Amino acid sequence: MAKERLLVVGGNAAGMSAASQARRLRPDLDIVAIERGPYTSYSTCGIPYYVADLVGPLSALIARTPEQFRDQHRIDARTGHTALAVDCTAQRLDICDAAGHSYREAYDHLLLACGARPIRPALPGVDGAGIYGVATLADGEQIHQAIAQHQPRRAVVIGGGYIGLEMAEALVRRGLEVALVEAGPQVMKTLDPDMGALVADALREIGVALYLGERVEGFELNHGQVCAVTTDQQQLPADIVILGLGVQPNTTLAEQAGIPLGVKQAIKVNPRLQSEVDNIWAAGDCAESFHRISRQPVHIALGTVANKQGLTAGINLGGRYATFPGVVGTAVSKICKFEVARTGLQEQEIEALGLAYVTASIDSQTRASYYPDAGEIRVKLLAERGSGRLLGGQIVGVEGAAKRIDVLACALWAEFDVQTLIGMDLSYAPPYSPVWDPVQIAARRLVKEL
Amino acid sequence: MAKERLLVVGGNAAGMSAASQARRLRPDLDIVAIERGPYTSYSTCGIPYYVADLVGPLSALIARTPEQFRDQHRIDARTGHTALAVDCTAQRLDICDAAGHSYREAYDHLLLACGARPIRPALPGVDGAGIYGVATLADGEQIHQAIAQHQPRRAVVIGGGYIGLEMAEALVRRGLEVALVEAGPQVMKTLDPDMGALVADALREIGVALYLGERVEGFELNHGQVCAVTTDQQQLPADIVILGLGVQPNTTLAEQAGIPLGVKQAIKVNPRLQSEVDNIWAAGDCAESFHRISRQPVHIALGTVANKQGLTAGINLGGRYATFPGVVGTAVSKICKFEVARTGLQEQEIEALGLAYVTASIDSQTRASYYPDAGEIRVKLLAERGSGRLLGGQIVGVEGAAKRIDVLACALWAEFDVQTLIGMDLSYAPPYSPVWDPVQIAARRLVKEL
Repeated sequence: MAKERLLVVGGNAAGMSAASQARRLRPDLDIVAIERGPYTSYSTCGIPYYVADLVGPLSALIARTPEQFRDQHRIDARTGHTALAVDCTAQRLDICDAAGHSYREAYDHLLLACGARPIRPALPGVDGAGIYGVATLADGEQIHQAIAQHQPRRAVVIGGGYIGLEMAEALVRRGLEVALVEAGPQVMKTLDPDMGALVADALREIGVALYLGERVEGFELNHGQVCAVTTDQQQLPADIVILGLGVQPNTTLAEQAGIPLGVKQAIKVNPRLQSEVDNIWAAGDCAESFHRISRQPVHIALGTVANKQGLTAGINLGGRYATFPGVVGTAVSKICKFEVARTGLQEQEIEALGLAYVTASIDSQTRASYYPDAGEIRVKLLAERGSGRLLGGQIVGVEGAAKRIDVLACALWAEFDVQTLIGMDLSYAPPYSPVWDPVQIAARRLVKEL
Repeated sequence: MAKERLLVVGGNAAGMSAASQARRLRPDLDIVAIERGPYTSYSTCGIPYYVADLVGPLSALIARTPEQFRDQHRIDARTGHTALAVDCTAQRLDICDAAGHSYREAYDHLLLACGARPIRPALPGVDGAGIYGVATLADGEQIHQAIAQHQPRRAVVIGGGYIGLEMAEALVRRGLEVALVEAGPQVMKTLDPDMGALVADALREIGVALYLGERVEGFELNHGQVCAVTTDQQQLPADIVILGLGVQPNTTLAEQAGIPLGVKQAIKVNPRLQSEVDNIWAAGDCAESFHRISRQPVHIALGTVANKQGLTAGINLGGRYATFPGVVGTAVSKICKFEVARTGLQEQEIEALGLAYVTASIDSQTRASYYPDAGEIRVKLLAERGSGRLLGGQIVGVEGAAKRIDVLACALWAEFDVQTLIGMDLSYAPPYSPVWDPVQIAARRLVKEL
């Protein structure tokens, strides 16, 4: 009798976490992982730092190679192989190998961990050379090579989300003139506008030209190579263009197979990460998450979620029982001089839920005011009016600011109210904090608004 | 009719937080604060950094002066005034002013915020010149002056708690040869021995000579000035001696007045911070706290607790209602290259409670492994066997390590189990963390022990 087979589509965080976990629990399982690109298990989040020449070589971003998976984990990880179609009834997958030959693999369990792809707007010239999305390590490699080979002078980044901003900073570090175009009125729209404005200032400080409220209409090409970005207000010269317009779940394969999709076309999953089709699972950037504060399904494409979902799926695929408990919307990034963090719901999201809320923002310092290198930190908290329950928090500040968001994430997880946050026994020593931690100073301000 | 009067004994964190808060809520109240020393509202925790010449001048450590309290808050803060005796029945306090004259003040409400005093063992020579405790800003000032004036070459620090260790480091920074004598088998006994050993290594690395398991028996004096410390094993030459043997609540006044004391002779208080005597309140280092994990009263002399208790007492004295929710034993300090943090219960404390428990320690990094300046961090977690409920955590690591303790403090507050910690939506970006935060890596290890 043939061995039971787990087939994984996608060789990065979610897929390989699941495969590794399943292997640990079920040494008997036949595990095959299909990855379209050349690399497995790498740090997508490290790409801007690689492009900036802050980290490297490229291999430093790779946690495990296909060879390591094969030799150390007996996982048959096949790079350069693309999944073409799922037959859910026959339980088999059509695959195209690196040489372009199609073949077919049967599965007992299929895990879709196909990730997400950068949104590429259908604009004139968008397929020109020199226009890059940032979603895979291969994208990072191409951008890095393009800078080395073509020595571009002017870059235009489209989109003011965290990837766009991190890439803008990286390109400034590489000596390029950088313009950033954002259709909305602010950068970092996962923050409220007041907090986003601080981030915009930090970008301008390092010389990024910000064009907010400006819509890209197309790309000028010269012999197929991008030379300018046309917006509804101007033309910006560009030797290289980075698309930072966000990502969408890679779920064409799932959709064509009739696997039900949910919010933002992400694959619907239950807490065990099962899709609605028998023996098909999904995890990572192609799958939904449950938001513990809004109580709604969401699509959040982050490495933390992908790893946790992968682990959960892997435990279940390994024959045990685990559930993914959902998210509270935590994210952090480094943008120029600032550490930028958020968790929970922002104003717009709370309004969309129809909840009454209050907010408070405070300016404090990352260390005791008299301690060397004490620097600025702004904390904004949001709470439900009436109950005082914490709904969200945002932090922008210098070194030492960001990781404080985890206390708020934990407080959200515990469904604490603001008063509880004030009483909590948080740590203090002059090198790390004022005696009231800034998150507690913000909480003290917020209770006055309730 | 005379105004209602609040009399506060102790002009630092707890006392002046309470006085300020009471002032805000009751503009009509007559508020008098008695402080034995020359300063009000200062950062005791900043003293080692002041001695190290890392921060300064001395005034930088003072949040508010008596003049500011008088002019901005209408609080009559009297420095150099010592409380002599409380008459609980007549509701009055005998005081000795700066000139040595006694006088008497009546009170409607008395807040005892007398702080704590360094333990001074009754050993031969202990009252010699050049032997300093570290509890008040005046102590810090004296030590700083002594170094400037006498240029001591050799220092002996007695006691390996956080004050002793911070002072040892400060004295090394000032160019002294430093020996540290600790009667117990480890430094930093608020950590488990395995974690404390890391801290000891860091001290040795900067040249501190550690003598563990060695008991001080006396002090050699030369014309009244200390010149050596005699232990049960050797004589250590010393031009200056720092006592870091811990503190005890300053409750002689309370005891003599018949105010009931509790654990470690701290004043017994209810959650509103009322003592067991009518109209007498207590807050800060002279008062008890309730430990939310051991469910027992404890004495924890830390600025965080003092400030929170002061705020709570002040709200109540201001005519509103507030309770101090207790502590979970959180503390953090910077010892040489390490950030050292702990919360909850350590092994010894858990054993004393008779609980069955498991532990796990992991070594990880403060940033993504490929990111510049990624440094070592060790996290130890302790959980109840059977339930998996988190009981405590300890962290020793380089920059960025310490504040992670707050997540564990919050998780303890929420009475989370280790599995919950694994699922929690903590932040990740390569400059701040591996994709699984070290506290979650430790949690993943710990669940395997349950």
